[in-house]
Amino acid sequence: MDYFEESLNLHRTLKGKIRVSAKMDVRSKEDLSLVYSPGVAAPCLAIAANPDDVYKYTIKSNTVAIVTDGSAVLGLGDIGAAASIPVMEGKAMLFKRFANIDAFPICLDTQDTDKIVETVRLIAPVFGGVNLEDISAPRSFEIERRLQDLGIPVFHDDQHGTAIVTLAGLLNSCKLVGKKMEDLKVVINGAGAAGIAIARLLKAVDNPDSAYATPVKQIIICDSKGIIGRGRKDLNYAKTEVLEFTNPHDLAGSLKDALVDADVFIGVSVSNLLDRNDIATMARDSIIFAMANPIPEIMPAEAKLGGAAIVGTGRSDLPNQINNVLGFPGIFRGALDARAPRITPNMKLAAAHAIADHIRNPTLDGVIPPTLDEQVAWRVADEVRRVAEEEFGKR
Amino acid sequence: MDYFEESLNLHRTLKGKIRVSAKMDVRSKEDLSLVYSPGVAAPCLAIAANPDDVYKYTIKSNTVAIVTDGSAVLGLGDIGAAASIPVMEGKAMLFKRFANIDAFPICLDTQDTDKIVETVRLIAPVFGGVNLEDISAPRSFEIERRLQDLGIPVFHDDQHGTAIVTLAGLLNSCKLVGKKMEDLKVVINGAGAAGIAIARLLKAVDNPDSAYATPVKQIIICDSKGIIGRGRKDLNYAKTEVLEFTNPHDLAGSLKDALVDADVFIGVSVSNLLDRNDIATMARDSIIFAMANPIPEIMPAEAKLGGAAIVGTGRSDLPNQINNVLGFPGIFRGALDARAPRITPNMKLAAAHAIADHIRNPTLDGVIPPTLDEQVAWRVADEVRRVAEEEFGKR
Repeated sequence: MDYFEESLNLHRTLKGKIRVSAKMDVRSKEDLSLVYSPGVAAPCLAIAANPDDVYKYTIKSNTVAIVTDGSAVLGLGDIGAAASIPVMEGKAMLFKRFANIDAFPICLDTQDTDKIVETVRLIAPVFGGVNLEDISAPRSFEIERRLQDLGIPVFHDDQHGTAIVTLAGLLNSCKLVGKKMEDLKVVINGAGAAGIAIARLLKAVDNPDSAYATPVKQIIICDSKGIIGRGRKDLNYAKTEVLEFTNPHDLAGSLKDALVDADVFIGVSVSNLLDRNDIATMARDSIIFAMANPIPEIMPAEAKLGGAAIVGTGRSDLPNQINNVLGFPGIFRGALDARAPRITPNMKLAAAHAIADHIRNPTLDGVIPPTLDEQVAWRVADEVRRVAEEEFGKR
Repeated sequence: MDYFEESLNLHRTLKGKIRVSAKMDVRSKEDLSLVYSPGVAAPCLAIAANPDDVYKYTIKSNTVAIVTDGSAVLGLGDIGAAASIPVMEGKAMLFKRFANIDAFPICLDTQDTDKIVETVRLIAPVFGGVNLEDISAPRSFEIERRLQDLGIPVFHDDQHGTAIVTLAGLLNSCKLVGKKMEDLKVVINGAGAAGIAIARLLKAVDNPDSAYATPVKQIIICDSKGIIGRGRKDLNYAKTEVLEFTNPHDLAGSLKDALVDADVFIGVSVSNLLDRNDIATMARDSIIFAMANPIPEIMPAEAKLGGAAIVGTGRSDLPNQINNVLGFPGIFRGALDARAPRITPNMKLAAAHAIADHIRNPTLDGVIPPTLDEQVAWRVADEVRRVAEEEFGKR
């Protein structure tokens, strides 16, 4: 199938992929008087008197803003706000499809960190959550961090969604190859938003004492110049920060140097980086999640020839698709239902375990549920809500 | 019917009155590949290469932001952004119902003019138009004016919607009582957003030479302190500005002084202001549009006892309901369909004439179409689009 041409035709025919519709038909003057003037004054006054009632009488409890500045869209890079709209509409479709959430694209005509933060604050009243999307690192880290006090969950899916689904796949992979999470040596290639978030989650940096955490022993992160180590002089603040919990033996060298004796390779980088010989230098029964899109860092068949036991990619036409859609719909569903003020590290770990546990008997080609499995989001939602209620109480 | 209690129940049951839904069901991996990664890259790249394609491949061409700061909501006043959400959702329902437009509430947690202007600019990429709503005067004037260069229509409905529908009612009323628009003496009570906009439109201030304009001879605007005249020292800039085209004989005094010999009273002010004796001082066959909500400045029966020929109000349970819903859906439909960069005075006049002309044979109790007449918006849209294409060319 020629996705490119067919997708253009589909988008042209639909003229955008989402619509806003009324939950109730307005047929009579009475209807009009209830949903609009004068009856609408009733919920307005109720909310003015008790701000919490906004969750009772408006769309807030089920509505999420998908906020982007178009600076890091898919693998396309900095294409700007308008060109990013089709992706955000697609994301809104997935929110609806998998978790019945009303999500709406907010595509911002600025890439200024302060302005993005302020705009999200200003538009927040109508939204119950904010999904930050396709905002380039390291700005995305700062934007997300500065918005954690907003009172509603603000979640950068490119970071945490990817990290959560990756952890889920890794939990099941460990069961299959008989290794413990705590013993793993993991190499992550790609030090952008996703790579760093994966490292933090695998290492349980933000909640080391959590009952949900099984932090891996050793993580090495590489970027395009090789291993991120203390000898490097060219690191931005985000890359410097990861040295607090990665590369404990202070290795230097290339990605290939890092791979020697590693148990796991996680690629969130560029296509066609590795071949079977690189995999052969890794520990026995290695686990390869090669998630570059649309072409992985190494194709599964090639990785298996090098001795890999399990290979996952981002592709829908290959086994073990590591796809964010397994995460964000259920995570937001659970957070909205619990009225959680933010998404905590424990909620993220709970989501990863819920995704992993959804597969009763993992197999080498089935460490992660199929992307279109409709039950995953609801299972994730249950667990996320349960943990949120533990942490913040029932609302 | 107890609208208040019933409306609360309805809002609680619905949990908000609008939803976002997908135009297409995502059933298979192929569907997912078309609407999301990897196929979605096609429209993204098309728009990045040709910015105008955003109208072709996204929701922009049919999507309107309903922007408020919650500072002047219905008759409730400054209740804030969150408490205004039910009104904005109701408005979105009406956009959908009457003109099939996808409208979404943007309720801003600020009442700072500069911040509102900037936020609208920043969120604009996904929207084809902006309906400013329930923002208090005179800030609303400045916000609207500063956004006219945005490239998409920005229209403050409380001003122009009200003015357009009022003009429509007045055009038909003149036919019935045998007076000419050009000869009328009009008294407007209320010098907020609506009152001033009505004066500007009736006087064709912004397009005096237009073929569509039939400017009235004399307008007097009153506020709570009486006639707005050159002797007043307490006027804000907006009220001072209206003296350029109102009160030509520089009258001073009260509303009741102004009414003597007037042909038309237009009330956008407060309830129960006038009685039959006030109406009796007006010219023969006076026209009374008493639009205070929910209780008019004078009830129709009382006004008739004073000699009024025609009485309109804002109420759905009385004849001649002057309601914005006759205007904004069709105006935006026409402007969106023409891809007009703004809504011009001629487009507003054309909308008023389209509403008026929709009634073939006006009657004293039928100078304006019924609020729920589904054909009005489409007739308005046709005329607005036609004029927009005259002014800006076909897109």
